[in-house]
Amino acid sequence: MEKKHLLYEGRAKRVYATDDPELLIAAYKDSRGTAAVPGRGAVNNRVSVCLMQMLEREGIPTHLVEQRSDRETVIRRVHIIPLKVIIRNVAAGSLCTRIGLPEGTRLRSAILEYYYRSAALGDPMINRYHAFELQLCTPEELSVIDRYAFRINDILKPFLRGLGVDLIDCKLEFGRLPDGTIVLADEITPDTCRLWDAETGEKLDRDRFRRDPGRAKDVSEAILRRMTRGNFV
Amino acid sequence: MEKKHLLYEGRAKRVYATDDPELLIAAYKDSRGTAAVPGRGAVNNRVSVCLMQMLEREGIPTHLVEQRSDRETVIRRVHIIPLKVIIRNVAAGSLCTRIGLPEGTRLRSAILEYYYRSAALGDPMINRYHAFELQLCTPEELSVIDRYAFRINDILKPFLRGLGVDLIDCKLEFGRLPDGTIVLADEITPDTCRLWDAETGEKLDRDRFRRDPGRAKDVSEAILRRMTRGNFV
Repeated sequence: MEKKHLLYEGRAKRVYATDDPELLIAAYKDSRGTAAVPGRGAVNNRVSVCLMQMLEREGIPTHLVEQRSDRETVIRRVHIIPLKVIIRNVAAGSLCTRIGLPEGTRLRSAILEYYYRSAALGDPMINRYHAFELQLCTPEELSVIDRYAFRINDILKPFLRGLGVDLIDCKLEFGRLPDGTIVLADEITPDTCRLWDAETGEKLDRDRFRRDPGRAKDVSEAILRRMTRGNFV
Repeated sequence: MEKKHLLYEGRAKRVYATDDPELLIAAYKDSRGTAAVPGRGAVNNRVSVCLMQMLEREGIPTHLVEQRSDRETVIRRVHIIPLKVIIRNVAAGSLCTRIGLPEGTRLRSAILEYYYRSAALGDPMINRYHAFELQLCTPEELSVIDRYAFRINDILKPFLRGLGVDLIDCKLEFGRLPDGTIVLADEITPDTCRLWDAETGEKLDRDRFRRDPGRAKDVSEAILRRMTRGNFV
């Protein structure tokens, strides 16, 4: 497959066209916004590929085709649904300020939230009625997204727990294939999840990265090592 | 029935105990926050009683027992569910800033929103999962609330339209009777709805009140007159 022109550059990835109109190449950058950490892109690429392969085996369709190189993965071209879907197991971040829970509160049940991906509006939290008004997706599509989000959480949470890591919350994005199928898209990495050490509560994820950019790669590699040791990779 | 001690004083109403432990008296004030408009409490009391009677006839249970005097109404004692339920037909207020719709946009379908009644947190918008985490109500109760909110909108919208008034949005509160029944509580008045003149688009409601407090009573009386002319009172 031939890599062609750059289609899109985000904070964490560049996306390229290929000679197959249904396939794209996602190339992970070492930077994410401002801070660059050498090797980070390759580690995040590997983590996301491993987790999506696991989810595929569990019946969740994803945009993943195959890893192409250290930092490149072939993905299916989807229409991205402009929703950030957050699934939460423990209170952290904006949930604490919104509903007044202390950070670290274990939630009675997983909490699902939708945010409208709009830089102009600051990615506001929305509900299903807002999503339909904005024609982001159909009610049927949102039911599928809800189901996948809870199922992904039910798969990732015990898997990570087995590696000594608590999945606090996770951001998911979904896309629509040309035939209308909804698939998991974007990435699942320590940059899109909050991960805390299950024993010490130490933050192993993007919260840490914000405070301590130099540790980001180390942390991802630690998770990858844990995954590898568990023969999950 | 004997009016007893003051139980609660809000911005718009005082609530008194009675000699019947299941009944309370709501007394409407002329002020709402700071601005007092003579006669306003009586008009709002009458409007809310009329609208709740109409909703009762249409099968929506409410806390209403009977009007007791100009500004007093006997209501059933309920446990108030700390949710502000907003039902919207036309974009206005916070919806415009949240999802970027111009004010006055007619919505494809009615939009329902929940806000957590918490002065400390600034009444944040929440979703059903937040409501359950906070144990504000059960999933079964929230289904009933959703159904009532849409039904109330379906009743009020054409009724007000018949009076030349567009129902832009409406804030509803619900309560739980001792036997667990969910009923409409609080009030439905031009202070809890956005009402625009259907022909001119002139704002007849609390938006106007905020800018022009002296007109508040006039506006409520106009709506009451319209209702009376239509033999609805």
